[in-house]
Amino acid sequence: MSMTDRRPAFAAVDWGTSSFRLWLIAADGTVIGERRSQEGMAVASAACGFPKILKSHLQALGAADDLPVIICGMAGARQGWTEAGYVTVPALPEAILEGAVRVPGEGRDIRILPGLANRDPAHPDVMRGEETQLLGALEALGPGPHLACMPGTHSKWVEMEGASVQRFSTYMTGELFDVIAKHSLLSHSLAGAEGMDMAAFRTAVMKAVAEPARASNLLFAIRAGQLLEGAPADVSRARLSGTLIGLEIAGASGASDRPWNGTITLIVSGRLGDLYAAALEALNRPFRIADADEAVRVGLVRAARAIWSL
Amino acid sequence: MSMTDRRPAFAAVDWGTSSFRLWLIAADGTVIGERRSQEGMAVASAACGFPKILKSHLQALGAADDLPVIICGMAGARQGWTEAGYVTVPALPEAILEGAVRVPGEGRDIRILPGLANRDPAHPDVMRGEETQLLGALEALGPGPHLACMPGTHSKWVEMEGASVQRFSTYMTGELFDVIAKHSLLSHSLAGAEGMDMAAFRTAVMKAVAEPARASNLLFAIRAGQLLEGAPADVSRARLSGTLIGLEIAGASGASDRPWNGTITLIVSGRLGDLYAAALEALNRPFRIADADEAVRVGLVRAARAIWSL
Repeated sequence: MSMTDRRPAFAAVDWGTSSFRLWLIAADGTVIGERRSQEGMAVASAACGFPKILKSHLQALGAADDLPVIICGMAGARQGWTEAGYVTVPALPEAILEGAVRVPGEGRDIRILPGLANRDPAHPDVMRGEETQLLGALEALGPGPHLACMPGTHSKWVEMEGASVQRFSTYMTGELFDVIAKHSLLSHSLAGAEGMDMAAFRTAVMKAVAEPARASNLLFAIRAGQLLEGAPADVSRARLSGTLIGLEIAGASGASDRPWNGTITLIVSGRLGDLYAAALEALNRPFRIADADEAVRVGLVRAARAIWSL
Repeated sequence: MSMTDRRPAFAAVDWGTSSFRLWLIAADGTVIGERRSQEGMAVASAACGFPKILKSHLQALGAADDLPVIICGMAGARQGWTEAGYVTVPALPEAILEGAVRVPGEGRDIRILPGLANRDPAHPDVMRGEETQLLGALEALGPGPHLACMPGTHSKWVEMEGASVQRFSTYMTGELFDVIAKHSLLSHSLAGAEGMDMAAFRTAVMKAVAEPARASNLLFAIRAGQLLEGAPADVSRARLSGTLIGLEIAGASGASDRPWNGTITLIVSGRLGDLYAAALEALNRPFRIADADEAVRVGLVRAARAIWSL
């Protein structure tokens, strides 16, 4: 690779609710530099603001003042930087390229990609950021049907046919785990947990899938199990996680009017991927894993090349 | 009734997690005085303590220093005043009379009733306070089978055969409502709600019962409904309550291996009773209502008479 290839052509940013990631990308797609921080939308809205945070990271990497920037995620929400709206499904993931919004009043060219919306009144749903992961993952996946799961604070389950997103459903799994672990009676049962008992996790997943309607009873049983059986904190924490992930899998792939028996595509990175893989293994559900970090970066690169004809 | 009947024979106390209720009772069961406050176990454990709170209420009613006191509820928990243990089910509610524990080091005779425990390792569960409601409600109910629902922060569903509690299950409905409404993303959708849209409540109940496995998706749909359709706060609040109560009813009476098609006995007081009645009506489930405030008082009176041979 020649030195000229190593000049950045644009910056790509995944700006979520609680995290910020930036890559400097060369014209050929090579990653030249990377920054990560906790300055998500929650911080950016409250404190020093979106332009200042972006600028500080670009300067830290020595980026030129006129380097264009492509952004996906919550920066495009109404309470974000510049609202970028939603593309209504069914839609091709490529449709988000046409919906990109330019941030006004900035010297450099900054574009924010829109999210996707499911406007069926019986199942209203929205995503921001995951549509760019899908765009990035699609090349490797090939045409559907696919059922893709993107675990997280708000896990997304996406039904794809051919190259089209037909519909999707969000499960509040990660956020429920956080608020229950921190603010409910179960905080006493989880206090001091350092890890998760994976056997207890798998059992909890299977119980929730077998009886999803008893989910809020299974949650209380975590407290009762501590009181009556002295269950340790690592077991209680694993039961909470397993119950909520099991409930999600039951609802998203098992008990609907469109049961899915094929291979589930997990688009995920890190520790959360291990948990979802363990859950699907315990349920004997076939799955494959696509790296979420790479998928969102590839999606941003595809978008930048289309928008700026690189 | 003669004046002598109006002398208090004992005080009866229902001491919950977040509430305190005390009645002065005559030997014939007549209520002579009553006190209510928010000094539940949470306050009593942290601040001035159980003995001081009890004494202040007894003094406010002019009770004698040697008036005996019967107590049910969280005052008997491990983190309460004096631990009163659990009676293991199946059991007759009367079995709690033998398990009453005397509070040591107090001048007056103070007894705390034990709770009930379900020690089946597959469904561990506990209750404190509701067993005394059951004891009080049983006379009016007559012999079972009954399925009794006691709504609350931790709703209890109790299966009775003859006069015996066979098993019971706790649903964290009220607590989930609180932590989700206060601490999750949905707090934005509920901000400013002054009441509940009852049509939205009934629809949410029916959706949760139809697809309990999608519960955490139905919760996110509350946020999506606000973003995409502009659903007002009263509708969002009703959807949150209806989804959680519907999930509870589905798990407790609908989807288990022991479905219940008979009349459900709601033991409840106040606004919560209206919500559960509306939910069961929307589902065409037959039910009757027993007043929870009266049931716990009658149960405490039965216990006091047995313990002190009044």
